[in-house]
Amino acid sequence: MIKKYYLLSPGPTPVPEQALSVAAEPIIHHRTPEFSAIFMEVIEGLKYVFETKEDVFILTSSGSGAMETAVINTLNAGDKVITINGGKFGERWGKICRAYGIEVKEIMLEWGDLFTKEQLADELKSNPGIKAVFATLSETSSGTVYDIQGYGEVVAQTEAILAVDGISGLGATPCPMDDWKVDIMTAGSQKSFMIPPGLAYIAFSPKAWNLVEKSTLPKFYFDAKAYKKNLEKKTTPWTPAVSLIIQQKKSLDIIRSIGLEKLFEHHRILGDTTRAGAKAIGLELLSKNPGNILTAIKVPAGIDGVKLVKTMQGKYMAYIAGGQDPYKGKIFRIAHLGYMGGFDIITALSALEMTLSELGYEFEHGGSLKAAEAVLKENWE
Amino acid sequence: MIKKYYLLSPGPTPVPEQALSVAAEPIIHHRTPEFSAIFMEVIEGLKYVFETKEDVFILTSSGSGAMETAVINTLNAGDKVITINGGKFGERWGKICRAYGIEVKEIMLEWGDLFTKEQLADELKSNPGIKAVFATLSETSSGTVYDIQGYGEVVAQTEAILAVDGISGLGATPCPMDDWKVDIMTAGSQKSFMIPPGLAYIAFSPKAWNLVEKSTLPKFYFDAKAYKKNLEKKTTPWTPAVSLIIQQKKSLDIIRSIGLEKLFEHHRILGDTTRAGAKAIGLELLSKNPGNILTAIKVPAGIDGVKLVKTMQGKYMAYIAGGQDPYKGKIFRIAHLGYMGGFDIITALSALEMTLSELGYEFEHGGSLKAAEAVLKENWE
Repeated sequence: MIKKYYLLSPGPTPVPEQALSVAAEPIIHHRTPEFSAIFMEVIEGLKYVFETKEDVFILTSSGSGAMETAVINTLNAGDKVITINGGKFGERWGKICRAYGIEVKEIMLEWGDLFTKEQLADELKSNPGIKAVFATLSETSSGTVYDIQGYGEVVAQTEAILAVDGISGLGATPCPMDDWKVDIMTAGSQKSFMIPPGLAYIAFSPKAWNLVEKSTLPKFYFDAKAYKKNLEKKTTPWTPAVSLIIQQKKSLDIIRSIGLEKLFEHHRILGDTTRAGAKAIGLELLSKNPGNILTAIKVPAGIDGVKLVKTMQGKYMAYIAGGQDPYKGKIFRIAHLGYMGGFDIITALSALEMTLSELGYEFEHGGSLKAAEAVLKENWE
Repeated sequence: MIKKYYLLSPGPTPVPEQALSVAAEPIIHHRTPEFSAIFMEVIEGLKYVFETKEDVFILTSSGSGAMETAVINTLNAGDKVITINGGKFGERWGKICRAYGIEVKEIMLEWGDLFTKEQLADELKSNPGIKAVFATLSETSSGTVYDIQGYGEVVAQTEAILAVDGISGLGATPCPMDDWKVDIMTAGSQKSFMIPPGLAYIAFSPKAWNLVEKSTLPKFYFDAKAYKKNLEKKTTPWTPAVSLIIQQKKSLDIIRSIGLEKLFEHHRILGDTTRAGAKAIGLELLSKNPGNILTAIKVPAGIDGVKLVKTMQGKYMAYIAGGQDPYKGKIFRIAHLGYMGGFDIITALSALEMTLSELGYEFEHGGSLKAAEAVLKENWE
């Protein structure tokens, strides 16, 4: 049989053919009006997805580079911050802050558990002098979406800023930067932005920019002021990843032609479909608030979770993700993020059923497909 | 007339068609044996071009990110270093170091002037306690190649390390890292490595790695230890620019099939061709030691240098580079770097003649072409 490759991971995600093919075009020079025109169109498209009137800066780096940019441009050594650690990426905020001598009050959550805005308000009250709160929109390691809107309400009433890792969630689940009072929003190209990895995006509110002016942490490549100064000249401070930016233009055209609201609804349907499929064959979700970006599913008792992922990838070429750190072998993660269609979920569930069957799990064969199909059919238009 | 686009700038440089087309292939996941196999082949290819037995790390960033990586992984605040500033990129070493509280003894050179190993030895003698010397292989702003071999001899006799910006020169002009006792070598993907911008490369000698172990400057995204730890697992610490790495595999295949020695000779011929063409129509070079990467040519008296570059780019679509900073309007730069052929130089010179003629410069029309052709013919095989 011909075995096709299915990318079902929470980044990188599949790239639309139209955005792949432009990567094969000859490279143009980045210090030209021609490139600047494309670059500024991309900036406008990013502002549309960020739902902000602020500048969005384009970094040539992974999303972690944008997270570091958020920290080192607003803080000073010795500052006190809160980080919300509900998984591997929430944990990363703490690691970055500590690397720069920031005092971190780390909220340790069980993976998949929630943290309410009231809890955040309490933490801010009992920890005076907090300068920033670092949160995650969609925690990729657990599939959980947090209450950024609530955090924004709470943090806006204080002197602190709210910085959000929107790397895997932005563009797939609502998080309007300006309306929700997010002070720093970060994103990555290989998620809902539908292009390969290599670019990261970041925007600052006026409240955050005020801290940028006073920040003394050392920086060079990720110096936000250099990006701002160069954006005024329609360019970047350092040579940008030209081909990726041209791809981003193409994928943003697609994103804008669909529209953000419809994309959120699309991801909601795929999330519902995946959850319905999993539950129909007796599987449990890890998260107490599973988002529409990816679904983390518990490996059933008695089944080898590492073998499950290996079989999905190696035999069925369905590249879902395994569990990380304490959840290695205990969960697996099916993404429904970016350029995916409803039948991609049917495919994922079918490969999952074949795999589970092979590993000795007992369930009604076809059950997840039937349930998933029902959700898709109900929502199809 | 159909007007074709000619990329004749010192980065980005033209990408071979075979390396362009792979960028249009579907993205694969980066945490898979399949990607690791490609990744490790790229690492081997980079070691070949670096001429080193040390690890070469792949960063998703511009070359400036690799320069910052060199500084922040080896030094501590208050350390004393020497930077050799013969142009915009030599100047950048000083800027990065100062951003991190390093004490910089900056050697200020006229653009295009040389700095001998004896002069460096004197500076090291009269400035005790220097921990690192930061130099440039090929200074892109002036077209000058410096005596890295000599600097290596001198610095190796001291406690200091030698860090080299090889971003535009490595792979085009000899600079064997291990043989020439270079302690840190940096490079960028969009130069002789024949792919688009977005990746940077860096390697450390054991002497430099010894400093890495002791460095206390803050870092996260560019933390060399994280790259080393992950390279042992055949991967990167953060999501890498997958498509660019796959392109790099293709271009490294081309580079290895030609062979480094022949590539140096190729660039030597293109450099000679460009210089012969320029001189034949009475033009002067800026550099006292022009390299084979690009040629910086003085704008003749009475000619508007900004208009010259604009005409070359806008009318003839020959994307040479203008002068930077103090040399804006005073020089222009023709690159002969990476995936270029002899007739690309003929094209550049022809567009230059048409432009100069239009701007009122008097010269023997066709003179540069005749001289260039003679050099190419003599060397053609």
